[in-house]
Amino acid sequence: MKVFVLGGDGFCGWPTSLHLSNLGHDITIIDNLSRRNIDNELEAGSLTPIQPMGKRLAAWKQTTGHTITYERLDIATNYHRLLTLIQDERPDAIIHFAEQRAAPYSMKSSAHKRYTVNNNLNATHNTLAAIVEANTNTHLIHLGTMGVYGYGTAGMKIPEGYLPIEVTTDQGTKVQQEILYPPNPGSIYHLTKTQDQLFFAYYAKNDRLRITDLHQGIVWGTNTPDTLKDERLINRFDYDGDYGTVLNRFLMQAAVDYPLTVHGTGGQTRAFIHIRDTVRCLQLALENPPDNGERVKILNQMTETHRVRDLAQIVSDITGATIEHTPNPRKEDAENELHVKNDLFLDLGLEPTTLQQGLLEEVTTIAKKYAQRADLDKIPCTSTWTREQQAGTPHTAKKTPETA
Amino acid sequence: MKVFVLGGDGFCGWPTSLHLSNLGHDITIIDNLSRRNIDNELEAGSLTPIQPMGKRLAAWKQTTGHTITYERLDIATNYHRLLTLIQDERPDAIIHFAEQRAAPYSMKSSAHKRYTVNNNLNATHNTLAAIVEANTNTHLIHLGTMGVYGYGTAGMKIPEGYLPIEVTTDQGTKVQQEILYPPNPGSIYHLTKTQDQLFFAYYAKNDRLRITDLHQGIVWGTNTPDTLKDERLINRFDYDGDYGTVLNRFLMQAAVDYPLTVHGTGGQTRAFIHIRDTVRCLQLALENPPDNGERVKILNQMTETHRVRDLAQIVSDITGATIEHTPNPRKEDAENELHVKNDLFLDLGLEPTTLQQGLLEEVTTIAKKYAQRADLDKIPCTSTWTREQQAGTPHTAKKTPETA
Repeated sequence: MKVFVLGGDGFCGWPTSLHLSNLGHDITIIDNLSRRNIDNELEAGSLTPIQPMGKRLAAWKQTTGHTITYERLDIATNYHRLLTLIQDERPDAIIHFAEQRAAPYSMKSSAHKRYTVNNNLNATHNTLAAIVEANTNTHLIHLGTMGVYGYGTAGMKIPEGYLPIEVTTDQGTKVQQEILYPPNPGSIYHLTKTQDQLFFAYYAKNDRLRITDLHQGIVWGTNTPDTLKDERLINRFDYDGDYGTVLNRFLMQAAVDYPLTVHGTGGQTRAFIHIRDTVRCLQLALENPPDNGERVKILNQMTETHRVRDLAQIVSDITGATIEHTPNPRKEDAENELHVKNDLFLDLGLEPTTLQQGLLEEVTTIAKKYAQRADLDKIPCTSTWTREQQAGTPHTAKKTPETA
Repeated sequence: MKVFVLGGDGFCGWPTSLHLSNLGHDITIIDNLSRRNIDNELEAGSLTPIQPMGKRLAAWKQTTGHTITYERLDIATNYHRLLTLIQDERPDAIIHFAEQRAAPYSMKSSAHKRYTVNNNLNATHNTLAAIVEANTNTHLIHLGTMGVYGYGTAGMKIPEGYLPIEVTTDQGTKVQQEILYPPNPGSIYHLTKTQDQLFFAYYAKNDRLRITDLHQGIVWGTNTPDTLKDERLINRFDYDGDYGTVLNRFLMQAAVDYPLTVHGTGGQTRAFIHIRDTVRCLQLALENPPDNGERVKILNQMTETHRVRDLAQIVSDITGATIEHTPNPRKEDAENELHVKNDLFLDLGLEPTTLQQGLLEEVTTIAKKYAQRADLDKIPCTSTWTREQQAGTPHTAKKTPETA
């Protein structure tokens, strides 16, 4: 299949592009390098030494013989080029990762909130409008987030997108309906994904587009079999307080002898998935599109749930790292339960990589190996959700030598 | 109170500004004149001879002694000026009409879809982000639409924003919840208002902003007691296929001996409100803000419902106009029921202007008086929702002399 990967330079987009290319699909990466540019802004970078796109693609060609095409393009602003690419190439599928994806980054300031809203919503809508205008019947696969559901506890498993409900009519009888799960986003970033859902529902209804929305948990791990083929193909690993996801930050903290920073009580329960499973899920979604006229196909892309303080304990047990509870920079419930259905991907044949299997490998092959590249000052989460919240900086933080 | 009216040059914004100014409030109109600029694009204009803002405000000052301030500003793009205005003036309330508000316009092309999305979502979000950044506790009042609910029939009255539901837990017990009514927008324009709702819910939760969202029906009528004080204060009246609302188009069609164009069977049931009641509702919303930390206060701003074909018959009975059924350019159900709760405004003291009272007056004082200004070629609804829909052009349409 001919597949566009929007945001194919990013943490999920890059290994997905390789995985699908390796399976023989014809891949075009479309990316504006925004993630690398944000590294410049934040004065932080990938712990792993990621290569420029030119080097990455040359290494892939050299290693596997496969060619991946690359177009540098901002899909949120350059609609016309996106449109002509779709018109000229008529892709069978577009995989859309091209959104600002860090909750803390989206909450740093008004400017960051506004960038996230403007970029994410226009990127998604431009893609939908272009598919309709090009009239190509392209299958759109979007990376959503488990965060659209929120982290309240209603006493039931979170379904895959749609919630069966009962409403009472004026006559007192009860009617069964199935609705898009009522959204409850926890940040501006998550908010944009709940708004994306409404775009998708509308275009599936009005234009009969084929759309799959994948509500992914927190990704951990770094490499996939493809990115391990050559060190120039290595995936990015973010450890900073804005882009580092909780488990990867714990691994890095353990590697550099920094306390594992648990926000508040650490009672937040979250869903997780390994990056290797992410790329397999994308493959399964690509191979199993909905029909035209069908509602948006929503799948929960996660494999296990853990409480944050339990995760910290697991990493501490493996590594001997200390744990420090800090203020929680986020405005959220201190404790929540989370039970999630993920039958759809399991039924399609996904075999999850569990924390038990992969954790130690990550600590030794990634976090310890590249530890000397870390700027310790970038580790704490300093983006606060409101004026009342405080940064998640530990008292016992190590500092980089020049700032200590 | 000090009140900003975003979009204060438009059809609802202008009479609202006058009404609140007349009550003694300190009004600043913020507008980028987009509605007048779209007149230029569409080569259509208000049937009534609206005056430039400078003349409007001078006439208001001369007639009533009240001063209204005016800032020409695009709030969707010029965030910083919006922020400094809020910081400097610290308004008690901001009334937000500053969105592209025509469903047919939003569906004309990809460019129109994209403009509507980009303009409406950034306008709303910039306003919210600016209130948070300015830290002013400003009450935000937004004009939503009945269209967020969609026009499906679930056998119950549409509630004011929130729907009580029952969900079944894993243990088989039932839990009562109240959720934002599941959205079902019928156009890109309506879609943006459902996405606005998610912005509001988030900022009410995270930042404890005080927000009121008014889900308005289709507005009819032209003038209010204030716009009648001087002919230079006259409100706009749109009769074209993109911006003309159904009842106003029927009135104009009757005045120029054009068939009343009913789309499809005319079985669409819609909610209506007179522009006089709109401005009273805005006053009531201003006087009754929610508390900080309260959920978004949602009120249904409509006074009666009618089926489109019944409306056509009423206008035909008054005027003798013929009725012609045309193809429906919209993708929508041919027939729907609509029962809407509007207790909140009635409880606050709203006394509705009914169709029976006001219709004949509109025909004679507006539609007939200014009929010679109409471009008959602009009357049909030619914006189609998909490639399959057809324009709502009647076979018996009169044409303007030069194109006949």
